[in-house]
Amino acid sequence: MVKLIAIYRKPENIEEFDKHYFEVHAPLAEKVPGLVKLEVNKVYGSPAGESNLHLIAEMVFESKEALATAMKTPEMRAAGKDLMGFAGKLVSMHFVEVV
Amino acid sequence: MVKLIAIYRKPENIEEFDKHYFEVHAPLAEKVPGLVKLEVNKVYGSPAGESNLHLIAEMVFESKEALATAMKTPEMRAAGKDLMGFAGKLVSMHFVEVV
Repeated sequence: MVKLIAIYRKPENIEEFDKHYFEVHAPLAEKVPGLVKLEVNKVYGSPAGESNLHLIAEMVFESKEALATAMKTPEMRAAGKDLMGFAGKLVSMHFVEVV
Repeated sequence: MVKLIAIYRKPENIEEFDKHYFEVHAPLAEKVPGLVKLEVNKVYGSPAGESNLHLIAEMVFESKEALATAMKTPEMRAAGKDLMGFAGKLVSMHFVEVV
């Protein structure tokens, strides 16, 4: 099992960010072919107090090949274009394999 | 469902880091009372090329209360002490709730 993990730092306007994320971006991400599951984690703190992060989103795929194929689809390109528009400066993305 | 997510930047010596992580640290984390699952994600890249991260580890708990209780146990303190010793400068930790 592999994932595309998106780590979002705290936005200036959390309400506006969440509205776009949950009403526009997550539905686009859920259309990506081969996606097993989108799991969105909302950050509520850290052992040291406040966290600098807001969301950690995990797009799960069956294999590295399935994720590589998904990256080339029009649906992923649409999700990526939307992402850059509302969160380009807040997000970092990582390919991971579940050990 | 909630998680304690630990995000590790790339260590200088990956082999040494992985040996300590998988042989010493993960077994300590797995002893924490109330833990539902430890899921370790190994980073293998990013859409932009190489990632600055090495691991994203997720400790899953039933509820915020269960995680808060777990944070106070001797087992979590032992895991935390070990963590600071081998990865204090590489790790950031976050409490998250699955949306």
